[in-house]
Amino acid sequence: MSVLVVGSVALDSVDTPFGRATEALGGSAVYFSAAASLLAPVQLVGVVGRDYPVEALDFLVQRGVDLTGLIQAPGESFRWSGAYSYDLNTAHTLETRLGVFASFSPRLPERFCSAEWLFLANIDPELQMEVLDQVDAPRLVACDTMNYWIEGKREALLELLGRVDLLLVNDAEIRQLSGDPNLIRAARWVQRQGPRYVVVKKGEHGAFLLTPDMIFFAPAYPLEELFDPTGAGDAFAGGFLGYLAQAGAVTPDELRRAMVYGAVMGSFAVERFSVERFVDLAPSEIHERVRAFREMTAFEHPLLESARV
Amino acid sequence: MSVLVVGSVALDSVDTPFGRATEALGGSAVYFSAAASLLAPVQLVGVVGRDYPVEALDFLVQRGVDLTGLIQAPGESFRWSGAYSYDLNTAHTLETRLGVFASFSPRLPERFCSAEWLFLANIDPELQMEVLDQVDAPRLVACDTMNYWIEGKREALLELLGRVDLLLVNDAEIRQLSGDPNLIRAARWVQRQGPRYVVVKKGEHGAFLLTPDMIFFAPAYPLEELFDPTGAGDAFAGGFLGYLAQAGAVTPDELRRAMVYGAVMGSFAVERFSVERFVDLAPSEIHERVRAFREMTAFEHPLLESARV
Repeated sequence: MSVLVVGSVALDSVDTPFGRATEALGGSAVYFSAAASLLAPVQLVGVVGRDYPVEALDFLVQRGVDLTGLIQAPGESFRWSGAYSYDLNTAHTLETRLGVFASFSPRLPERFCSAEWLFLANIDPELQMEVLDQVDAPRLVACDTMNYWIEGKREALLELLGRVDLLLVNDAEIRQLSGDPNLIRAARWVQRQGPRYVVVKKGEHGAFLLTPDMIFFAPAYPLEELFDPTGAGDAFAGGFLGYLAQAGAVTPDELRRAMVYGAVMGSFAVERFSVERFVDLAPSEIHERVRAFREMTAFEHPLLESARV
Repeated sequence: MSVLVVGSVALDSVDTPFGRATEALGGSAVYFSAAASLLAPVQLVGVVGRDYPVEALDFLVQRGVDLTGLIQAPGESFRWSGAYSYDLNTAHTLETRLGVFASFSPRLPERFCSAEWLFLANIDPELQMEVLDQVDAPRLVACDTMNYWIEGKREALLELLGRVDLLLVNDAEIRQLSGDPNLIRAARWVQRQGPRYVVVKKGEHGAFLLTPDMIFFAPAYPLEELFDPTGAGDAFAGGFLGYLAQAGAVTPDELRRAMVYGAVMGSFAVERFSVERFVDLAPSEIHERVRAFREMTAFEHPLLESARV
């Protein structure tokens, strides 16, 4: 029931109107693991430089994240710095320094190859496929991507899409990928490229899941104080995949709940800088927020009493 | 259980990438009535010029819309023309000709003064208050507004807000009104000005309701073909108020259902030009869409089995 994630392990410097974090834990694999490990064991594949404070990842290890696949290589760690203006909706990248990530060639520890749940976080689609090639028989393969690969590695990305079950992207990315401003049509276009399941993350507007049989909407948790949106999408993916790995099945009902866990984890991510909110997050806090999502969306109706849901 | 609406009765000319409508039925009171009258009787207050094709409103009369309060005055009818680009998110106003609307001074027929449910659609806040002054003891007063009044009649608008129970606005409007980009904080700011209930309409991203005790989210119905977004917000208001008038109570459960009926009616509005979709809309189509909203948002969870909702 482990989830395998490959992605970036970075040091982020983030400027927001509410404060500043310097060289904080970041990267898609870190955010994903911080969220997913609250629900299921996680195996992480990535690379850092000699300068990375790996001991800062101890809280993940204590929670069942297997870091055997995290290589420490000669050179500098991946660094990202960005800034958010007052509306917090868009990150403005100030600098990206790939460091050791530039020559990353993921090699899976033997015991990772039997992973059943796989998340290929936002990295070069060729690397995503390299990882996929090394996994024996995954039950569910999910991937993320970004504008950089949609522009620069479109063919490899389309080849990857033909091999995955689930694409998780944000609204701008799926519009760019499909060339269609209508998000529903865009998600159907993605389905025709391969993935049965498509999750579109819309930031403050929540997220939706399209499957061949249904569509499910989860709002964003209403926060009056958003602190730092960095990593919210990866935490969403961590909640989604972590929940499915825990449930051990991909049914419509489990997928609905996975969406709620995704939204819940995304909402925690933005409440603090970096992965701080996940360090001491209690199961009761997660349950309470799941309950809040029910209360924000459920309605009864006499006409629907006999309905299945 | 009638709903009284005061607002514009107009002729709209709309250009979209999918076609063009010329001098079609439009105006906030018309969209509102077309939707609300499917759920409850409606009383309409407004003004048109001698040139208005009032017989085109016969379908409303047959459905129980009382047009006694619609005055036909010497002069030209209110005309609006606008265009939408491909993403259909923003209307570009090409021309607004107020005509007889410029000197409109609403006077309620005697029997309208006992209205229990009141919708003050988007007109000059001073006119909205004139109407409010003439209603004896409404159970619920709702209003809409727009950027034009937020800029030009802010004091009158704030005075009005002190006298209404519910404000329904879109995301851009509430940000402008409150000066806060965070929609939750913006809605709380509005509550401090008077309205217990605030509905924020977010177009393709759905809508949410904030009350002193809860928040409720309704997604937008996922349409692959949006035809003409004009009037969606007024149809939403019509579904919301029409449902409450039918239910006859303002409880948390009724408010949740009202949100769903609002979202349902908004989704019908955008499927055709003008109010065309409402002319022959069958109750079964409304019920079916309510059911679809349930299926798009409901989830079960063992942890929540004992929860109230």
